Amino acid sequence: MNYCSECGAPVRRGVPAGDDHPRDICDSCGTIHYRNPKIIAGCLPVWGDRLLLCRRAIDPRRGYWTLPAGFMEEGETLAYAARREALEEANVVVEIAALYAVFSLPHLSQVYVFYRADMLDESFHPGAESLETRLFHEHEIPWEELSFETVYRSLRHYFADRRTGRFQLHHEDIGPFSQRLLTIRREPSAA
Amino acid sequence: MNYCSECGAPVRRGVPAGDDHPRDICDSCGTIHYRNPKIIAGCLPVWGDRLLLCRRAIDPRRGYWTLPAGFMEEGETLAYAARREALEEANVVVEIAALYAVFSLPHLSQVYVFYRADMLDESFHPGAESLETRLFHEHEIPWEELSFETVYRSLRHYFADRRTGRFQLHHEDIGPFSQRLLTIRREPSAA
Repeated sequence: MNYCSECGAPVRRGVPAGDDHPRDICDSCGTIHYRNPKIIAGCLPVWGDRLLLCRRAIDPRRGYWTLPAGFMEEGETLAYAARREALEEANVVVEIAALYAVFSLPHLSQVYVFYRADMLDESFHPGAESLETRLFHEHEIPWEELSFETVYRSLRHYFADRRTGRFQLHHEDIGPFSQRLLTIRREPSAA
Repeated sequence: MNYCSECGAPVRRGVPAGDDHPRDICDSCGTIHYRNPKIIAGCLPVWGDRLLLCRRAIDPRRGYWTLPAGFMEEGETLAYAARREALEEANVVVEIAALYAVFSLPHLSQVYVFYRADMLDESFHPGAESLETRLFHEHEIPWEELSFETVYRSLRHYFADRRTGRFQLHHEDIGPFSQRLLTIRREPSAA
């Protein structure tokens, strides 16, 4: 950010009074601009014992296989966003079954939320952001050609859980942050 | 948004080519500005059979009781953000036990994520954003003076689950969107 989106004046990077994170500050109109992590919502579209994957037509990772997922929009619920992405990327209509995986990627400031979802029929074809869409049995999954770690883990968990017959929520951190420690600095008590 | 944060030129609201959502578009430098839902991370700090609540010192809902929670920052994991907020608002150190509740609030473009968390000791006192911090038994919870629907539901679920002895993840939508239907409009297939 170079300019204030409210008044158009140049902003400076600094820590506002009473805050402890650097922000983009507009000294002209007083606006403090906050940036926040983004949510990527997606699903595992299930048809019988197969899963639907999409081959990416866009960067990053063009040409690699992925689960339908994308940035949640304002005004959506998580489940709605996941269904919309499935429709956009694979022209597939799904019913959300359950929240299945939540990944924090602090180095990218992203949170991924995946659902297990049932395809309502066997109809699907690539949307504008996909080169190809295809149903895969477990032994057919292109493990070496998956787009992202989040997709890899979601698929691994899915097939492992399916073997045990019990699907559980998976909640994991991905990336260098996992080991970072919270600095425990209690404010001194007034008492 | 009135001005482009990249180049400072005025922006216009419009639907970019290949998109179907209105965005803030800069015709001067070509930047499309996206807005996304925000994540609020928080926890239910447990000490024995009591829960720690904070009375809000800030608007909205100043004076009402809440669970420690706040906007997730860039570079954080969900669990880290929840622990940080507990430290900031109640000077309480917690260990995250499990993901407990996920709420979509589409009318506010917010996603709330609450964890069950164990207090590491009985030490706590109000941070800058709290007027008061206090441990509550179930029968002491100020149900009529809670800050937000998300807090109300999290507490209701917690005590109900505790009675059954089985804590499960709660995933709910709050607000007018819940009933909205996805417009099923598959693109025509090229085939």
